[in-house]
Amino acid sequence: MTHQGFTLWFTGLSGAGKSTISAIIEKRLREAGAKVEVLDGDVVRANLSKGLGFSKEDRDTNIRRIGFVCEVLSRNGVIAIAAAISPYRAVREEIRSRIHNFVEVYVEVPLEVVAERDVKGLYKKAMAGEIPQFTGVSDPYEPPLHPEVMVNSAKETPEASAGKVWAKLKELGLISL
Amino acid sequence: MTHQGFTLWFTGLSGAGKSTISAIIEKRLREAGAKVEVLDGDVVRANLSKGLGFSKEDRDTNIRRIGFVCEVLSRNGVIAIAAAISPYRAVREEIRSRIHNFVEVYVEVPLEVVAERDVKGLYKKAMAGEIPQFTGVSDPYEPPLHPEVMVNSAKETPEASAGKVWAKLKELGLISL
Repeated sequence: MTHQGFTLWFTGLSGAGKSTISAIIEKRLREAGAKVEVLDGDVVRANLSKGLGFSKEDRDTNIRRIGFVCEVLSRNGVIAIAAAISPYRAVREEIRSRIHNFVEVYVEVPLEVVAERDVKGLYKKAMAGEIPQFTGVSDPYEPPLHPEVMVNSAKETPEASAGKVWAKLKELGLISL
Repeated sequence: MTHQGFTLWFTGLSGAGKSTISAIIEKRLREAGAKVEVLDGDVVRANLSKGLGFSKEDRDTNIRRIGFVCEVLSRNGVIAIAAAISPYRAVREEIRSRIHNFVEVYVEVPLEVVAERDVKGLYKKAMAGEIPQFTGVSDPYEPPLHPEVMVNSAKETPEASAGKVWAKLKELGLISL
């Protein structure tokens, strides 16, 4: 395959499926020989943002750092995949304005559904007031107004969501087989 | 030209000539069509390390972040050039151990010479005690024991230093024309 450098930016609630869907895309890209890096919340908190908390300011700082790394990768022909909650619209738009090929994927899911799944047991704690500043419960999530791709993890499988993303990347001419 | 991904890591005192020499290398690489990113101290402090100070811990954190970005760039075929003081040997060695193609360039210069040049007026202030934790004056600088390249900005021009670096990159097979 051939591909351009671009940034695939997933956003959505904790547990929405960002990492799962991005892992499918990553695998498919790697198998096709693409250059790709995934910057998920954990990788970045460990390597770039140790010590930052969950205030709006700290969250924005964390997201700007992910954005900076995505920027330098994608302007050098690498595919950068970000999979962090990135709850605030303004900082996402700021990053979009800095990156030439920016593809935002909104992983939509009703709060009730992720709270019911509660894979990491975090929603239960957040709803009991044990985790302050938890996105969607005690902290805001601002959905994108015009994402390039919308997927819904309550209504479709991760594979189906990944398929939508893949189709959009082809449509935009960012990948070609 | 063709090139591999690698990290070219400059280390040396403030004012030693790291940025000047790296800018010559960067220009030459760009003119030859290479993919290259320069991460100097200012770029990184602005984008990855705002709020960090100059304690050993904060300096090491800053250097690790530069190292992380160099790592993801160079494993994707991009040439990453770091030009920060990076005074501590241990963290430089830690980064070397993480990066496949790591080329360390020690820009040697006697303290008296950079203090005499004092391009930014910082040495005068540091020696008057107005800047605490200033590398080489009131904070340590640990020179590399086995750098791939040693240049001396008191004895040679920046162009000559850049020439040495270039020759080493060719010798190592990292660039070829």
